[in-house]
Amino acid sequence: MTPTPPAHHNHPHPEQHLSSSATLQDIVIGLSDGLTVPFALAAGLSGAVSSSALVITAGLAEIVAGSIAMGLGGYLAGRTEVEHYAAELARERREVQEVPHVERAEVDELLAEMGLSAETRARAVAELTADPEQWVRFMMKYELGLEEPDPRQAPKSAFTISSAYALGGLIPLSAYFVTDTPAQGLLWSAAITLVCLFVFGFFKSRMTGQPAVAGAFKMTFVGALAAAAAFGVAKAVGG
Amino acid sequence: MTPTPPAHHNHPHPEQHLSSSATLQDIVIGLSDGLTVPFALAAGLSGAVSSSALVITAGLAEIVAGSIAMGLGGYLAGRTEVEHYAAELARERREVQEVPHVERAEVDELLAEMGLSAETRARAVAELTADPEQWVRFMMKYELGLEEPDPRQAPKSAFTISSAYALGGLIPLSAYFVTDTPAQGLLWSAAITLVCLFVFGFFKSRMTGQPAVAGAFKMTFVGALAAAAAFGVAKAVGG
Repeated sequence: MTPTPPAHHNHPHPEQHLSSSATLQDIVIGLSDGLTVPFALAAGLSGAVSSSALVITAGLAEIVAGSIAMGLGGYLAGRTEVEHYAAELARERREVQEVPHVERAEVDELLAEMGLSAETRARAVAELTADPEQWVRFMMKYELGLEEPDPRQAPKSAFTISSAYALGGLIPLSAYFVTDTPAQGLLWSAAITLVCLFVFGFFKSRMTGQPAVAGAFKMTFVGALAAAAAFGVAKAVGG
Repeated sequence: MTPTPPAHHNHPHPEQHLSSSATLQDIVIGLSDGLTVPFALAAGLSGAVSSSALVITAGLAEIVAGSIAMGLGGYLAGRTEVEHYAAELARERREVQEVPHVERAEVDELLAEMGLSAETRARAVAELTADPEQWVRFMMKYELGLEEPDPRQAPKSAFTISSAYALGGLIPLSAYFVTDTPAQGLLWSAAITLVCLFVFGFFKSRMTGQPAVAGAFKMTFVGALAAAAAFGVAKAVGG
């Protein structure tokens, strides 16, 4: 459910680049889960109940629950990231001021890990620590591996993930609206959803530079397996 | 649903450190979602159906669907990360061999961004590019921001996330096993789950160095809101 974040290349406009790839990533997260979990739940219930209305009720409850959990969860995680960055920044600023020798030794250690000689390190440490703000930025990025998060990203992410999840979830559920029995609904739901998962997996893999057909089969397989397992369990328990 | 990954500090034993924090992070991901979504789904159905057996059937189907989607999804994402790293490594090796002047200019650019003078950069570039393997490792880490993933992490992650999700989901569902009506089940389920979310949110925040009580309230709020919304929708549609 948590796809690998795309690599952050160092482009001339990193913020713009990051922001658009973050939105795409949010759509991918929401759609993958939305197409999979509500589909599998509805499929599972189809094996255990005789009323399409019940499958629809449970499916909609799941979509609402999942999109709030994902959206609000994503929003709070984003806010936490902003707070975490601010706290670490304050700590680094304090340490650069209060224990500069410790921080200078840390810069030296990082440069040694890169493979620089003692002589070059001595010059580099002097230059990097000449300006306190530059020094702090260096520690944040290279010691802690933290990039400054955009505070406007969290609410945007929440909205994108929620909407994508709800949209993804309505696709498998739509089949139960237009058919008469859960069995018929399941047939159409599986047909529509597996095609969507295949197409979506194809483009998702292509977007992240992975082998596209393999990615399409993987995503379809996850959805099919989740649905089959949910069907089996619901049948055993309640069918 | 996707919490902020913890910052990767540069500790003496980074691999060991990363591996144990990755497992904890997987438990947190699985438990947060497991406590929230099955709880909210069951709560939603309680407002729409009169049979506890039906709530349990739907809840179990959801737990199975969710834990497969999350576990297998996490496994495939991990495998993709390993493949992505290998592909990028091969590309960097090729570029260092075929267009060394371009790659050397990129090293220089990265060092300029850190704040090094032209003279220090000239020395540093010469040292960093003296050994091709060290050069490639530098590009992987500082240009692409990629750390070598552990290939054993993906199956371990899949198992941990799935189990944590299932465990988390069985907590809210357990109440419906021991009560007679969905309404009674909901009452106990909400009581147990909201307490668990609060305690879990407290320790999760504490673990990641965030204000613990605020984190506890946030997590409880997400669960309560998801459950209330699912209840409202299920009641409106099927109740």
